[in-house]
Amino acid sequence: MLIGITMGDANGIGPELMLKAYRNEEIQKDFIFIGDYEILNFCNELLNYGVPLRKTGDVISVKEGFLNIYDMGIMDRNDLKIGQVSEKAGYAARKYVEQAVTFALKKRIDAIVTLPISKEAIRIRDKNFSGHTELIAGMCHQTNYAMMLASERLRAIHVSTHLPLKKAVEFVRKDRVYNVIKLAHEGLSKTGGSPRIAVAGLNPHSGENGAFGREEIEEIAPAVAKAMEEGINVEGPIPPDTVILKAYNKKYDAVVCMYHDQGHIPIKLLDFEGAVNVTLGLKVIRTSVAHGTAFDIAYKGTASTRSLVEAFKFAARLVKGICT
Amino acid sequence: MLIGITMGDANGIGPELMLKAYRNEEIQKDFIFIGDYEILNFCNELLNYGVPLRKTGDVISVKEGFLNIYDMGIMDRNDLKIGQVSEKAGYAARKYVEQAVTFALKKRIDAIVTLPISKEAIRIRDKNFSGHTELIAGMCHQTNYAMMLASERLRAIHVSTHLPLKKAVEFVRKDRVYNVIKLAHEGLSKTGGSPRIAVAGLNPHSGENGAFGREEIEEIAPAVAKAMEEGINVEGPIPPDTVILKAYNKKYDAVVCMYHDQGHIPIKLLDFEGAVNVTLGLKVIRTSVAHGTAFDIAYKGTASTRSLVEAFKFAARLVKGICT
Repeated sequence: MLIGITMGDANGIGPELMLKAYRNEEIQKDFIFIGDYEILNFCNELLNYGVPLRKTGDVISVKEGFLNIYDMGIMDRNDLKIGQVSEKAGYAARKYVEQAVTFALKKRIDAIVTLPISKEAIRIRDKNFSGHTELIAGMCHQTNYAMMLASERLRAIHVSTHLPLKKAVEFVRKDRVYNVIKLAHEGLSKTGGSPRIAVAGLNPHSGENGAFGREEIEEIAPAVAKAMEEGINVEGPIPPDTVILKAYNKKYDAVVCMYHDQGHIPIKLLDFEGAVNVTLGLKVIRTSVAHGTAFDIAYKGTASTRSLVEAFKFAARLVKGICT
Repeated sequence: MLIGITMGDANGIGPELMLKAYRNEEIQKDFIFIGDYEILNFCNELLNYGVPLRKTGDVISVKEGFLNIYDMGIMDRNDLKIGQVSEKAGYAARKYVEQAVTFALKKRIDAIVTLPISKEAIRIRDKNFSGHTELIAGMCHQTNYAMMLASERLRAIHVSTHLPLKKAVEFVRKDRVYNVIKLAHEGLSKTGGSPRIAVAGLNPHSGENGAFGREEIEEIAPAVAKAMEEGINVEGPIPPDTVILKAYNKKYDAVVCMYHDQGHIPIKLLDFEGAVNVTLGLKVIRTSVAHGTAFDIAYKGTASTRSLVEAFKFAARLVKGICT
């Protein structure tokens, strides 16, 4: 098994997290780092980590006892603007991901774990850039996928993610809700059992029988019914402010959430550092840290490696087909 | 100090919660119960609670050592449909609240604590009935108010509550956001100090500088700026999935939330039983349990009194002007 870990934005906490996780013996094998050797080397010196680094050259090769780096050769230490948005770091961060996806599609690596990019930095060149997930999906020529945010006790799969809330509401359509239920079922079925899936409502109290909002009646309930007919273990719509608690109390294995914050608010509250982002439905396995670039604390060595470590573990479990 | 506690829907858990809280010595004085004596008496017998009940007749009077009931004389035990929606129970529940508001406006009672109604039951007669809060506000001839949901560690004040999410988004306008910040400030200032108020964004990541949603730029930020100019201790917009955690970690005393579930999801997750609903901005003080009628467990004596007890305490603190 070989997992590609992309460096993310050079001005953020990506480089130090990789070094720290290696140094803490949290992640030491089964991976290749895809990024800039010069940057990692600088960070290693700055923080005095003493991690043994190794450039692989233009091939993928790993040698035990080293942090192996597939060096993209884009940025060096003079390009760094620590804690700031910069065009070059944005450009580079995108390239690392594209390289990783290329490797994954060619089966040279088994999965991708992404460290945080700055969308703002990438948008300096590409105004329409909407995120990691969309970039990877585009390279896979796939449109039917969903973002899962997972913590130890709670998993949320989102009908939409980075859309204005006004648009997100319009995304709650039976076909999409059904697809996301199915993606959740298929993704989590790798546990071996039949995952118990709850579907949240969209409106307060699930609209109280149409009194405030009809999406539950017209879109969500029919999607749930269709999935049930196919034998998927699913219930809903369940009022948004109670479904999460029920899942947390282990009544369900996952909640299909109708928009980004419906899932993100509770999971980040419960486990800010340990949450992991998993893309379901793509032909390449991809997980990600759930936090951002944290520019304010970059290159200080203080950021927590927990999300990276959990993302790595989750990717490894997906590769092995054991997602528990 | 005298607080009126309304019985809520007779077919739900309201009657037993009052009896249980009295019997457990959680609420024994400074209140008058507004509802139906016959129903409370029946519940008292059924659950074998032995609480000493006293009808006050057509006046407000309380006698120590008794659970004093201002008897509305609407429902008796034959009208009960335990655990079901019924027109008569809906009608009666509304009348208890109207009576309590009348008393409060005449200063015969100092505050109102409401037990849960069934909106569905009330809507059998009044299709447009939207909730306790709106009913009370209507009787006060006030339109500028806001709903706060409070748990021990987290308080959320909502820009809107029982609206379809699609409509709730349209409610995020600078005037309304400013008003809610002000209501939060004034309501919480009764603590003596200057409350630290955070304002949540509406869109994922607060829209990332307009990339997905412009309400933060066009509506929320100007409202925050205006409130700051007036000396209110307020910050925002802050991304919805991090602001709650910051408030939970005591960086803020309260969060102004842009829609119902933004505040309800985290608070119900953190403290489902102990959360309290407080209406800010009305000339009558009103708090409420944060749970519903719980028809499925009515008249079993199993429901938790915590929310009622906390709602009662919160009302008492507001009466005394000490909201800590």
